[in-house]
Amino acid sequence: MSEPYTPTARTRVTREPHRGIYDRAIAYQILDEGFICHVGFVIDNQPFVIPTGYGRAGDNLYIHGSAASRMLRNLDQGVPVCVTVTLLDGLVLARSIFNQSMNYRSVVVLGTAVAVEDPKEKLEALRALSDHILPGRWADVRQPNDKELKATLVMRLPITEFSAKVRQGPPIDDEEDYSFPTWAGVVPLKMQTGAPINDPRLDPAQEVPLYARNYSRNK
Amino acid sequence: MSEPYTPTARTRVTREPHRGIYDRAIAYQILDEGFICHVGFVIDNQPFVIPTGYGRAGDNLYIHGSAASRMLRNLDQGVPVCVTVTLLDGLVLARSIFNQSMNYRSVVVLGTAVAVEDPKEKLEALRALSDHILPGRWADVRQPNDKELKATLVMRLPITEFSAKVRQGPPIDDEEDYSFPTWAGVVPLKMQTGAPINDPRLDPAQEVPLYARNYSRNK
Repeated sequence: MSEPYTPTARTRVTREPHRGIYDRAIAYQILDEGFICHVGFVIDNQPFVIPTGYGRAGDNLYIHGSAASRMLRNLDQGVPVCVTVTLLDGLVLARSIFNQSMNYRSVVVLGTAVAVEDPKEKLEALRALSDHILPGRWADVRQPNDKELKATLVMRLPITEFSAKVRQGPPIDDEEDYSFPTWAGVVPLKMQTGAPINDPRLDPAQEVPLYARNYSRNK
Repeated sequence: MSEPYTPTARTRVTREPHRGIYDRAIAYQILDEGFICHVGFVIDNQPFVIPTGYGRAGDNLYIHGSAASRMLRNLDQGVPVCVTVTLLDGLVLARSIFNQSMNYRSVVVLGTAVAVEDPKEKLEALRALSDHILPGRWADVRQPNDKELKATLVMRLPITEFSAKVRQGPPIDDEEDYSFPTWAGVVPLKMQTGAPINDPRLDPAQEVPLYARNYSRNK
């Protein structure tokens, strides 16, 4: 267990409250295993939810790409966002439709995202984003130049207001349904990495690096 | 190609516009392959993004569960939502950090979700949700009773304002970077289903049904 954390009214899990987890270490494990997040923001009272890459450095999340772009078009001050990361672990097949479920681990972070202006922090954020996707890659590629850094939008969201939600294990049926004549159980789900595919223009002298071979995401 | 569809200012893809797709058939393929969506809604100007199951019946999306619950706590009329489904297909490892990317297929649907009140439509929506997760399951389980139907929140979102976004294929590097001495290519990603795990309380006479064996999601 890491430091105690008290959820706010906005992050307290109200539906299936026994699934709510407010432990920072567990939330970070989930955040570190996901490949993408879904960023929510509001324009003219319309919510938008955009998938994008992210990275974590300490108690900050960094996002970039099209989500940041669309947000920044409208606001160059801080913008209220919700960043959600979901890992899907299985289909939970109960004996009744009502108790069908899924096994998952998710984290919701609420707060105000701000654009990262400092070039040094921006570079570190890009490194966190790269390390997040594929540790080892950063050292092997051409680093961003000044022009690219200026063209890159990165936003920082402090991980202060958050909650995690986890469901795992077998289906939970109503007691009287356990005699219902059907199969019940879990179909596991896992994000699987495949064998690397060489770029068609790859220099034949270049071999697939170790960090990209048999890359397994599950810690 | 299906019927022509003209994006609105809100759904036109502005970042990497060549990735924008406004074809209904392609959007539905993506929607039908995903297991979960991320629903965005707004409470007191704060966006929330909640993962949840969904189903499609014709030109309607149905969602239920905790997202609907939290939304309905605040609004029993229609509520502006954004439903996003993202399929992750690969890590795109370019020769420069700036051109790192991911292969993905995503759909964003904007609109107003309303609670489904009619018991018949609600039952059909639950069937669509079940068929969406695991075709064949619906016929094998105990159907919802009146009490459960009343306790279930289902919302309907017409698929009228939407866009899809797709990136596939190898990295696209700046021309001068192709000689940079590093490996480049794609690490494929796929949501893999595993061998079904029997419920610990399963009647030993019950065998794993065909629809849950070797279940592959990719159409």
